[in-house]
Amino acid sequence: MSNPETTYTAEPNSHAATTTAIIDAPKAAVYRAYTEADLLVRWWGPRELTSKVEQFEPVTGGAWRVVHVDPSGAEYGFRGVYHEVSPDRIVNTFEFDGTPGHVCLETVTFEDVDGKTRVTSQSVFQSVEDRDGMAQSGMEEFAPVGMAQLQEVASSL
Amino acid sequence: MSNPETTYTAEPNSHAATTTAIIDAPKAAVYRAYTEADLLVRWWGPRELTSKVEQFEPVTGGAWRVVHVDPSGAEYGFRGVYHEVSPDRIVNTFEFDGTPGHVCLETVTFEDVDGKTRVTSQSVFQSVEDRDGMAQSGMEEFAPVGMAQLQEVASSL
Repeated sequence: MSNPETTYTAEPNSHAATTTAIIDAPKAAVYRAYTEADLLVRWWGPRELTSKVEQFEPVTGGAWRVVHVDPSGAEYGFRGVYHEVSPDRIVNTFEFDGTPGHVCLETVTFEDVDGKTRVTSQSVFQSVEDRDGMAQSGMEEFAPVGMAQLQEVASSL
Repeated sequence: MSNPETTYTAEPNSHAATTTAIIDAPKAAVYRAYTEADLLVRWWGPRELTSKVEQFEPVTGGAWRVVHVDPSGAEYGFRGVYHEVSPDRIVNTFEFDGTPGHVCLETVTFEDVDGKTRVTSQSVFQSVEDRDGMAQSGMEEFAPVGMAQLQEVASSL
């Protein structure tokens, strides 16, 4: 199984950034990788960091908080709330402790494509500057890595 | 007391729309008008509609659902979740039942300006088309009306 081809799109002067990939795993497995904490921590974030799930309620109206811990013990927290969680789509907010007050709205859609799954993950930010800052902080670089890790987890189920 | 001067900004080809007004009432009163259900229904929406608050948890992690009822009895529901509720700022999601699946992220900030309150209400949409559709549906026309109603309620407290 080869790594999924991943497209990252962030048009100039836009509030949005979108990552798309075809994951070689069934839609139900990809959905599980997003909504089961023990699976999420295996792919969500750079491999050199460990993740602690402090809150995880992947249902409409629920909340989530995940903390990355680097090898030195430094912690990087992320949190948000779920506007919608359904087999076709997850819509949630996202905020990084390191940039407090800067929130984005994430929409992840899952589509069956001949037994594989098209994942489209869009983030819309409160400003174009926020979007650019997130891109520079490694979002674009991480996109193909994250999608490869997601495929590894989902295809193992 | 005159109606607050209200500015509505929606730049071409942007995901965002922003309404700003200086409300002639203290910041704490404006905040109450956003976070107490019996006050909210007095200003949130066109005057010819009545509002039913079906869910209202204005705290970080809470959810909300408000239904407008027109004189014929037709209902228009809106719902979302609160990412953050604090005296300076409310960040929540927003979805109208009539356009299911189209979600926006709202950020309302409250700033004291010599005893009055600058309210800045920004919405970022999942697409520019969504933003344009919302503007055409009356968001821009309602902005000064809503701000005048907000002032009426907040200044009465």
